[in-house]
Amino acid sequence: MADRQENPSGEDSLIARYFRPIATDPGAFDLGDDAAVLKADGCDIVVTTDAIVEGVHFLSSDPPDTVARKALRVNLSDLAAKGAAPAGFVLTLALRNADEAWLKPFAKALGDDATQFGCPLLGGDTVSTPGPLMISITAFGRVPTGKMVHRNGAKPGDRVVVTGTIGDATLGLAILKSGKVADATANDAAARNLLIGRYRVPQPRSALAEIVRAHASAAMDVSDGLAGDLAKLCGVSGVSAVIDMESIPLSDPARDLVSRRIVGIETLLAGGDDYEVLCTIPEDRVDAFAEAARLVSVQVTSIGMVVAGASAPKFLDGQGSEIPLERLSYSHF
Amino acid sequence: MADRQENPSGEDSLIARYFRPIATDPGAFDLGDDAAVLKADGCDIVVTTDAIVEGVHFLSSDPPDTVARKALRVNLSDLAAKGAAPAGFVLTLALRNADEAWLKPFAKALGDDATQFGCPLLGGDTVSTPGPLMISITAFGRVPTGKMVHRNGAKPGDRVVVTGTIGDATLGLAILKSGKVADATANDAAARNLLIGRYRVPQPRSALAEIVRAHASAAMDVSDGLAGDLAKLCGVSGVSAVIDMESIPLSDPARDLVSRRIVGIETLLAGGDDYEVLCTIPEDRVDAFAEAARLVSVQVTSIGMVVAGASAPKFLDGQGSEIPLERLSYSHF
Repeated sequence: MADRQENPSGEDSLIARYFRPIATDPGAFDLGDDAAVLKADGCDIVVTTDAIVEGVHFLSSDPPDTVARKALRVNLSDLAAKGAAPAGFVLTLALRNADEAWLKPFAKALGDDATQFGCPLLGGDTVSTPGPLMISITAFGRVPTGKMVHRNGAKPGDRVVVTGTIGDATLGLAILKSGKVADATANDAAARNLLIGRYRVPQPRSALAEIVRAHASAAMDVSDGLAGDLAKLCGVSGVSAVIDMESIPLSDPARDLVSRRIVGIETLLAGGDDYEVLCTIPEDRVDAFAEAARLVSVQVTSIGMVVAGASAPKFLDGQGSEIPLERLSYSHF
Repeated sequence: MADRQENPSGEDSLIARYFRPIATDPGAFDLGDDAAVLKADGCDIVVTTDAIVEGVHFLSSDPPDTVARKALRVNLSDLAAKGAAPAGFVLTLALRNADEAWLKPFAKALGDDATQFGCPLLGGDTVSTPGPLMISITAFGRVPTGKMVHRNGAKPGDRVVVTGTIGDATLGLAILKSGKVADATANDAAARNLLIGRYRVPQPRSALAEIVRAHASAAMDVSDGLAGDLAKLCGVSGVSAVIDMESIPLSDPARDLVSRRIVGIETLLAGGDDYEVLCTIPEDRVDAFAEAARLVSVQVTSIGMVVAGASAPKFLDGQGSEIPLERLSYSHF
C-alpha cells in the first residue's frame, strides 16, 4: 500500500511545494486542513470575489508573475474602495496541467503581493481544466461594524474624485494586441512599458482605504470603464453627475496619444482594467480628503460634481458642451 | 448617452434577473455593491473553497439544477465536517454564454439550496470563458472561537466513523459513462436513479456539524475516496488506523454490485464524490455521538480504530487479512 508521505498525489504535492510556503497565516493551518479560519476581530468582514480568465482578462503571453499579481490586486482594489483593510484571501486555480515553470513564479509573486499588502493566503482549490487558465480569488477585509463604504451614498453637491490616471490599461492592452496604438508607440519603449505595466499589474489603492472610509459618501473601484462605472454609482445612488472631461487625469503617454488623435478620450473612459478608486466626497470634506491622500502619496483628482436627477452622467468638454459616449463600459455578455 | 436603467449591460442584466432574487441576505446588498458584508457574530469564520468543472466534476449532460446543488453542497460538506454552521457563500460562474435556459434552473436550484441549508448567496462574479463551465464557490461558516474541528486531532484508540454510505457516487458516474456497471444495472431503474442521484447531488451532513464539534477529535469530508482521505487524516494526525472492510456502509445497490463481482469494494473505497463526513471519536464519546446522530437522522457507522504508527491505514477482510489497495484516491494531476 502506498505511503502517502512518500508518494503524495500530484495535487497535494503541487500545493505543498508552491503554495504552503506562502500560506504563513496561522488561520491557513499550512493548507493542511479542509478549511481556514478567519478572525473577525470585532469587525465586519467585507467579502469580494473576482476571477480572471486567460484570453479574457489576461493574455496567454502575460508572464505568470504578473498574472498572479493581477488576480490578487483586482480584489484588493475592491477592498480599498470599500474602505476595508485586507485580511486574507482564498484562491481557486484552474490549470490545464501542473506546469512548474509557470507555477513557481506565479506562487512566488502571489506570496510577495500577499506580504506587501498584508493579505495572506488562507486556502484554495486546484482543479484541472481542458480550457483556459482561470484564477478566482475571494478576498476578505475588515471594517469597523457598519462602516463598509457603499456605492449608493452619493448626494447632489458631492465632488466626484478618482485616483491615479484613467485609460492606461486599455492602451496597454491595445499595444499588446497590435494595431494603431502599438504602431504609434513603436519607438517609445518607456511609454509602452508604462502602459503595458498598467494593464498587467494594477495598483490597488489600499493606502487610501481608511481615508475613503473616513470621508467618502460613496465609492467603487473602476474596473469596467470610468464612464460606465460612474453611471452605475449614480444609478444606485439615485443621482446624476456632471464631469469635466479636461480634468480627467491622464498619464503622459495617454495624453500624448489623445493629443495626436491616435485614440479619443472616450475610448479611455470606456476602457476597462483601471482599478482606480472612484468616490464621491461631500464638499466640506474635500480638503481633508485631499490632504490625507497626499500624506499617503495617492494622487486624487476632482473630475466633477454629483447633481440631482436620474439621467446618466454628462461629460462636458472645455466649452461646456456635452460629449456623447457611444460605449460606456466593458461587458462580458 | 445610454441610460443604464433601460439598457443594462448583459452581465448586469443576467445578475439582476437570476441571482438578485436569491440574494436575500442583508449583507448581500441586493448584489448592487462591489462587496458583501459577513457578520462574525463573535464567532470564528470558517472559510472553504471548492470548484467544479464541466467534464471533470460534472458532466455536460447533468441538468443545471443538479450542477448548482453540487457546486454549493460540496462546500457545505466541508463546513459540516469542520463543525461549522453555514453563514453564506460567494459564487464565481465562468460561462461560455448567457444561456437563459441553463441559467434559470441553475439559479433557482441554487436559491432553493441556499434557503434549505441557511447559507445565503452574498455575492459573486460572472465571467465569460471559451472553455468548460466552471463554478467556484467560497463558503463561510461560523464556529465558537477556536472550535473548528481539525484533521489532525485523531488519537490511538479513537473510533473511525463515517456517515451515510460509501461508493455510490463513483458507481453513479460509472453508469453515466456506460460500461459494465451501466450494463449490470440496465434493468434496475431504482438502483440507477439512486446511484446517479448520489453522484449528481451530494447530501452534506450539515445536521451533524454541531455534533461533530461536540464529540470528534478529528474530521474531514470524504471527497476524493475514503481510503485516500483516511490516509490524509491519519498522516496529519501522526497516527494509523485499522479498518474492517465488512463494516464499510454500502447502499443496497452498491452491495448488490459488489456481491455480483461487477465491482470490487476497493473501487468504492478509492472513488470520489462521496461527500460524507469521516471523523474520529474518542471511545468515551461514541455512545453520545451515536445517540445525537440518531436524533438528527444521520446514519453513522463505526468502521475501525485509530492505532499508533506512521504506516498507511490497513483494510482487513472478514478473516483479518489485509486487503491491498492499489489506488487510494482521485487526483487531478
